[in-house]
Amino acid sequence: MNPLYAQMPTTIFEHMSARARETGAINLGQGFPDSNGPADVVDAAARALTERSNQYPPMAGIPELREAVAAHYQRHQQLDLSPAEVIVTSGATEAIAAAILALVTPGDEVVLFQPLYDAYLPLVRRAGGVPKFVRLAPPDWRVTAEALDAAFSERTRVAILNTPLNPAATIIGRDELALIAERVIASNAVLISDEVWEHLVFDGLKHVSPMTLPGMRERTVKIGSAGKIFSLTGWKVGWMCAAPNLAAPPSRAHQFLTFTTPPNLQAAAAYGLAKDDSYFEGMRAAFARSRDRLTAGLREAGWAVLPSQGTYFLSVDLAASGLALDDVTFCDRLVAEFGVAAIPVSAFYAEDPVTHIVRLCFAKRDETLDAAVERMEAAL
Amino acid sequence: MNPLYAQMPTTIFEHMSARARETGAINLGQGFPDSNGPADVVDAAARALTERSNQYPPMAGIPELREAVAAHYQRHQQLDLSPAEVIVTSGATEAIAAAILALVTPGDEVVLFQPLYDAYLPLVRRAGGVPKFVRLAPPDWRVTAEALDAAFSERTRVAILNTPLNPAATIIGRDELALIAERVIASNAVLISDEVWEHLVFDGLKHVSPMTLPGMRERTVKIGSAGKIFSLTGWKVGWMCAAPNLAAPPSRAHQFLTFTTPPNLQAAAAYGLAKDDSYFEGMRAAFARSRDRLTAGLREAGWAVLPSQGTYFLSVDLAASGLALDDVTFCDRLVAEFGVAAIPVSAFYAEDPVTHIVRLCFAKRDETLDAAVERMEAAL
Ligand SMILES: CSCCC(=O)C(=O)O
Ligand SMILES: CSCCC(=O)C(=O)O
Repeated sequence: MNPLYAQMPTTIFEHMSARARETGAINLGQGFPDSNGPADVVDAAARALTERSNQYPPMAGIPELREAVAAHYQRHQQLDLSPAEVIVTSGATEAIAAAILALVTPGDEVVLFQPLYDAYLPLVRRAGGVPKFVRLAPPDWRVTAEALDAAFSERTRVAILNTPLNPAATIIGRDELALIAERVIASNAVLISDEVWEHLVFDGLKHVSPMTLPGMRERTVKIGSAGKIFSLTGWKVGWMCAAPNLAAPPSRAHQFLTFTTPPNLQAAAAYGLAKDDSYFEGMRAAFARSRDRLTAGLREAGWAVLPSQGTYFLSVDLAASGLALDDVTFCDRLVAEFGVAAIPVSAFYAEDPVTHIVRLCFAKRDETLDAAVERMEAAL
Repeated sequence: MNPLYAQMPTTIFEHMSARARETGAINLGQGFPDSNGPADVVDAAARALTERSNQYPPMAGIPELREAVAAHYQRHQQLDLSPAEVIVTSGATEAIAAAILALVTPGDEVVLFQPLYDAYLPLVRRAGGVPKFVRLAPPDWRVTAEALDAAFSERTRVAILNTPLNPAATIIGRDELALIAERVIASNAVLISDEVWEHLVFDGLKHVSPMTLPGMRERTVKIGSAGKIFSLTGWKVGWMCAAPNLAAPPSRAHQFLTFTTPPNLQAAAAYGLAKDDSYFEGMRAAFARSRDRLTAGLREAGWAVLPSQGTYFLSVDLAASGLALDDVTFCDRLVAEFGVAAIPVSAFYAEDPVTHIVRLCFAKRDETLDAAVERMEAAL
C-alpha cells in the first residue's frame, strides 16, 4: 500500500458531515446549500435522461457544454476561449487531480498557498512533487512579494491557487495576482487556478481570473464547477480550460481517471450556463443576504466575525471572541454539545497552522441560520 | 509537464468513436450498446433528481447503493460482503485509478495481463510501479503457470486482472484463477480485479470472482460497473469492494479524485441491482443473440470469427480470414473506406503485440449488425 494513503484520515468535510448526520447537528461544515438547485436546471437534467443518449459521450465533454463554458467566460470574464480549450471533468476535484498528475513530474517544486483545499497536497505528493508553501493569515490573508519569493525558485514547475479563496472568503486582488504571475512567468512554470467560487462574490466586487493577466493566458489551467455555480454540489460536473498545448496532458490524465461525465448532467449544465446575467446577480444577492443574516446574528451574540467577500463561507475568530480554545477542540465541542457542525481552519494548513479561526457555511435557509446562531450564542 | 502524459495520444476507443462520428461509419469500436438502457432504471434516475438531494452524498456512496451492491453479490456470486466494504466511484475507471494510486508505491512490481485495458499501464506508471507482463494470445488466451512464474516475484505488490477479459471475450477459468491466486498469496500481494463484464457471460457459463478463491477474500479489490451492467455506459457509476483494511487506502485516493458520484444516478443503480434474476438472464440472452447474429453473418461472409464467452465483443482473425494486413492498417481502412469502426487488438498490448486480431462490439441493433456485416464482407 502506498504509505501516503495508508495513513490518511477521511477529509474534514466528510468527517464533519458524518458527525452532523450521526448527531442531528445543524451542518454548517461542508460547503453545500440546503436548497436543491434551480428547478429548471434540474428539469433539464431529467429531460436529457430520456431525450439523449446515456452512452459514453466524447471524452472531453459534449460539444454543447464545451461551447457553453467558452461562451460563459467570454460573457462574464472577457476571456477568449475556444470550445476546444475546455475539457469537461467529473467535478472540479477531478480536474485538479488530472492537472496535478499530468503537470507535476517527480522532483518538481510546486507552490501552494495556505490555507489550502485539502485535495491539493496529497495529490501533489502522490505526483512526486515537492511542496513549497506560501502562508496567508488572518485578518487580511494578503499575498506578499516576500512570501512569494521565499516559495518560488527556478525549480518551481507548478503553482496552485484558489480564488476566491476558501476558507478565507477573500478575492485575490489584481495586485496580488500580478505578483504571482510575475514569478510563475520568471520560473517558466504553470498555474493551476481553482476558480470554483468565481460566481460567489459579493458587494459588487469582481472576480479576476489569473488567466486574464498579461502573460498568463498560455500558462494557466483554469478550473470551474457547475456544482458550485448552480448549487448542485452532488452533480460533479466541472471543467478545466487551457491553451491546447497545456490542456493536452491533463486531458490524457482525465481519460484514465473517469474518462467522461454523465451526458444528461452535462446537458443541464450547458443549459444553466446560458442563463442571463440577472440569474447570476440574483443568486449572488441571495447568498449575500444569507451571509449578512448569519454575520449580524453572530455579532449580536457576541462573536467576532471576519468579513466575507466571496464563497459560501464566513469565519469567526475564537481569540477575538474571548475563547482560549483551539479550533479543533472548539469544533469537536460545538458539534457534540451544541449541535452545530463547523470546520476548523487549521485543517487547511499543512504546517504552521492558524488555530483560532472556525469556518461556517452560510448557504442555508434563514431558519437554519437563525437556529445555528442561537446554538452558537450558547457555545460562547 | 509529466512526460508520461505529454507524449500520450487519446485512447483508441475515443479515437475510433471520433472517426466514426466524423465519417458517419457504423461504430463497432468503443464498447457501448445502441439501446438507451432499461427505461425503468432511467426513470428512477429522473425521479431521484427531484425527489432527493442533489448535494454531496456521502463520500463512499449513498447507503442504498452500498447495500444494493453487497446484496447483489450475495445473490449472484455467493459473496459475503458488508455494505461498509463497498465504495462507490464515478465509474469503474475511477475505481481502477484509486486502487492503483493507493496500492502501488514507487518501485513496486505490478503484474499485468496482456491484452490489457488501456487505463491500467499509464496509471501503474504514474504511480511509480514497475510493470511485469503476462502475455495471453489467441486462439485460447490461456493463463499458464510458466507465464505467471516469469512475471511474479517476491517484489510483486499488486496484480491487475480483468475477467471476463476484454478484448479476448474469455472468462478466466477457476483453474487459471487458482494459479494466479497461489502466486498473489505467495508474493504477499493484492489483486485488483476488474470485473466490469461479470454479468455479460453467455451459454450458461459462470463468471467466477477471484475474490471467492481460497485466501483471496482479504487480498482482492473487486471492481464493478453499473454502466456496464445496465448498458448505461455514460452514467459512470462504479464501485470497488474490499475488506476494510484493503479498502481504506483506495477510498482515501477516491476522496481526492472525484470525492463522490451523482446521487440520483446512484439511487437508480441501487434500484436496478435489486431486479430479479429473470432480468439479468433476459439481458444475457439478448446479447448472446446479437453475438450469434454477428458471428453467423461474418462467417457467412467468409470471416474467421473467434468464439466469445462474454463481454460486448467478438473478434475476427485477419490472418485466418486470408488477409495479410496488420490490425491497425486494417482498422484504418475499414473505417475510412468501408464505414465500420473497429478496434485493433494490438492496442491492448504494451509489448510483443498480437497484430492479426480485430475486435467488434456486437451490442447493437439487428439492422446495425446486418449493415456492418455487409460492409465487412466488402472489406474482405
Ligand atoms: C468536496 S467536500 C468540500 C466542499 C467544499 O468545497 C468545502 O466545504 O470547502
Ligand atoms: C471507456 S471507453 C472503452 C469502453 C470499453 O470498455 C471498451 O471499448 O473496451
